[in-house]
Amino acid sequence: MGKSTPLKVALLGCGVVGSQVARQLLAQAEDLRARIGRPLELVGIAVNNLGKERPGIDRELLTDDALSLASRPDVDLVIELMGGIEPARTLLLAAINAGSSVITANKALLAEDGPTIYSAAEEAGVDVYFEAAVAGAIPIVRPLRESLVGDEVTTVMGIVNGTTNFILDKMHTDGADFAEVLAEAQRLGYAEADPTADVEGFDAAAKAAILASLAFHSRVKLADVTREGITSVTASDIDAAKEMGCVIKLLARCALSEDGTIAVGVHPTMVPLAHPLASIPGAYNAIFIESRNAGRLMFMGKGAGGSPTASAVLGDLVTAARNRVRGARGPGESTYSGRTITEAGLERSRYYASLTVHDEPGVLAEVAATFANHGVSLQAVRQESVGEQARLGVMTHLAFHREVSGAIADLDRMPTVQPGISLMRVEGD
Amino acid sequence: MGKSTPLKVALLGCGVVGSQVARQLLAQAEDLRARIGRPLELVGIAVNNLGKERPGIDRELLTDDALSLASRPDVDLVIELMGGIEPARTLLLAAINAGSSVITANKALLAEDGPTIYSAAEEAGVDVYFEAAVAGAIPIVRPLRESLVGDEVTTVMGIVNGTTNFILDKMHTDGADFAEVLAEAQRLGYAEADPTADVEGFDAAAKAAILASLAFHSRVKLADVTREGITSVTASDIDAAKEMGCVIKLLARCALSEDGTIAVGVHPTMVPLAHPLASIPGAYNAIFIESRNAGRLMFMGKGAGGSPTASAVLGDLVTAARNRVRGARGPGESTYSGRTITEAGLERSRYYASLTVHDEPGVLAEVAATFANHGVSLQAVRQESVGEQARLGVMTHLAFHREVSGAIADLDRMPTVQPGISLMRVEGD
Repeated sequence: MGKSTPLKVALLGCGVVGSQVARQLLAQAEDLRARIGRPLELVGIAVNNLGKERPGIDRELLTDDALSLASRPDVDLVIELMGGIEPARTLLLAAINAGSSVITANKALLAEDGPTIYSAAEEAGVDVYFEAAVAGAIPIVRPLRESLVGDEVTTVMGIVNGTTNFILDKMHTDGADFAEVLAEAQRLGYAEADPTADVEGFDAAAKAAILASLAFHSRVKLADVTREGITSVTASDIDAAKEMGCVIKLLARCALSEDGTIAVGVHPTMVPLAHPLASIPGAYNAIFIESRNAGRLMFMGKGAGGSPTASAVLGDLVTAARNRVRGARGPGESTYSGRTITEAGLERSRYYASLTVHDEPGVLAEVAATFANHGVSLQAVRQESVGEQARLGVMTHLAFHREVSGAIADLDRMPTVQPGISLMRVEGD
Repeated sequence: MGKSTPLKVALLGCGVVGSQVARQLLAQAEDLRARIGRPLELVGIAVNNLGKERPGIDRELLTDDALSLASRPDVDLVIELMGGIEPARTLLLAAINAGSSVITANKALLAEDGPTIYSAAEEAGVDVYFEAAVAGAIPIVRPLRESLVGDEVTTVMGIVNGTTNFILDKMHTDGADFAEVLAEAQRLGYAEADPTADVEGFDAAAKAAILASLAFHSRVKLADVTREGITSVTASDIDAAKEMGCVIKLLARCALSEDGTIAVGVHPTMVPLAHPLASIPGAYNAIFIESRNAGRLMFMGKGAGGSPTASAVLGDLVTAARNRVRGARGPGESTYSGRTITEAGLERSRYYASLTVHDEPGVLAEVAATFANHGVSLQAVRQESVGEQARLGVMTHLAFHREVSGAIADLDRMPTVQPGISLMRVEGD
């Protein structure tokens, strides 16, 4: 192939990100050609609605026959930006089987059934790149797959969902409750009409599964991720966090447990103000990594939006295209380590429990004894009288979730303790 | 070659970083083998002093004949951690000519004469990786070369020298002068006995040249970098920064100018507290990137030290080794854009000038008029009377350095203005 023979690109999906990718392929054509060594030619865009207005997009490129486009044998690179499990999986497999390298931002599919895609690509000798699937524009997949590949990562955690970060930010600033801020976020377009995927933590959990797979060279699926959304975070939780010098963030956290298994969870978490993740503002995502040699690293950037996500897609596109030109391949799936998931309840964290008790002598001692009975040692206790009641805030040292849950269950049964104990993880040790 | 045939590795230099790399090659041998697909075998370490005690290092591996080791035709990968221009350059070229891929942390050599190394590697068909040359453990070379390669970077800037960041931090905290804090940093081992390379900004300037080359696909050398160290930063500069809601950081800054040229400089700079770089503490480095699509990104981590730097070296080693195993090559030098350096004086910034004047009517007007005569518009002015003198602090809007310098030169000649005007860049617009 001569240097002027274009590499053919097919695009599946033309929403906010897809249309930006299509426009940038034109706008940056000369730079991309110079960086790849051959020009790119966008040969087709699969859409659901052929009639929709798409400014800056050549109508001639549109097709509603995605399968035919994805399967074209003359295409070199297929970009999938439709999202969801099907038909995205079928289309990606068709593209791979037709010999195309693929670029996808589809976190749901990769977290649900990534190995099927990776295996097909391995067999076909093509690349799968997916930088845009986690934390938008932030380069995190490549650093984990390549930069840190000579190191041993022990923790990857981060703020990987902008909607929930925006909502929690507003709850801190305004002192408002979740429902109120959600309604505002929906008005402003920061939250979807059906916000479930975001506020229940499914989106973050898919990203956590992908991060854990990469960091620990193992297969981690969405179903392996313990998940808790932010819908039950209250204004009084926020107040409690403030009192403890923390902010509440929805953290996706993947960590090596002491027994060599991997704990992967998404939970609203109190983050001490001194921690770099504490100050990440609403629109941003951030990933924090700890590894044996590198120590602490943090990556911050825009986690969503057309242009930032398009940047990640185009970086992958250039990399995959360069590989084509050189007859090379990027790194494939790495699962040699084969770590399993930490048994439920054996993940460790600090915890903060808020409870209301009858304000009478001996209650605090009883509460403390309950934690001690379950092997949980306490780092700090705050007590505040409210009439005949007292509100207790209890911060534990690092403890197994099973032990803390046991203590909470016992407390729940005590006549002096009011129903509705709130329990939250606290980052750090 | 079978899967059990080792890839042979030679190490040039066995100081803090080199010895950590050697130890990790043993400690992580099984992981590295799994990640690469073949084992690594360290076949030799070139040192100056064969007699020195090196805990954990097999004496049998040591040699003082670096050239013979680097030139061994049976070696696959050569790691250069000696630093300095010679003999590092000769050794790297010998290794490349013998068919080895090379990994280096040598920022001075790459900033001085990188193209010689890159061209030799291109001709020999081998890889040059150098993640450790800039900002230690922070993955920044790979994100610039690969993740952001589908985007247009407009600014890369950062805190890339830990020694000066530590000193400036202490000056802020303790209110002490430069000389005093330097002496303390030297006692604590944070600054070298001869601190010139750090405090005069040479180290940061070499890194700036490398970052600019990568970000703008052009050749930028150390000599292209305007450079100002921190030796003349005074306690009263720090006070002025605080008054303006800023901290002083030594920033390496590479930015696309409006005329398409590149401005690359290292200067003590006032950074507003709200900027993510403002809160980077002493021991850390951070790189901040702005690009057309991705928007703002920041990367933070340890910029120096044996283990963090070894992490970057080993990541490169695995990548280069994988390429060997697959018969592939990583990205080479990219200079297609051929941008030149912004003409001296035509780089733009905000500036803060501190000057002492006779406290008499009309002086402030005269000062303001002087800036206006040079086309510099002012954003803020502070005046404070001290006896018969007044101290003025003047913050400009974005202005060409030539214009601001012209105004300062005129002010210096005014009888009402005391000698010794202090001028500092201010980040942001």
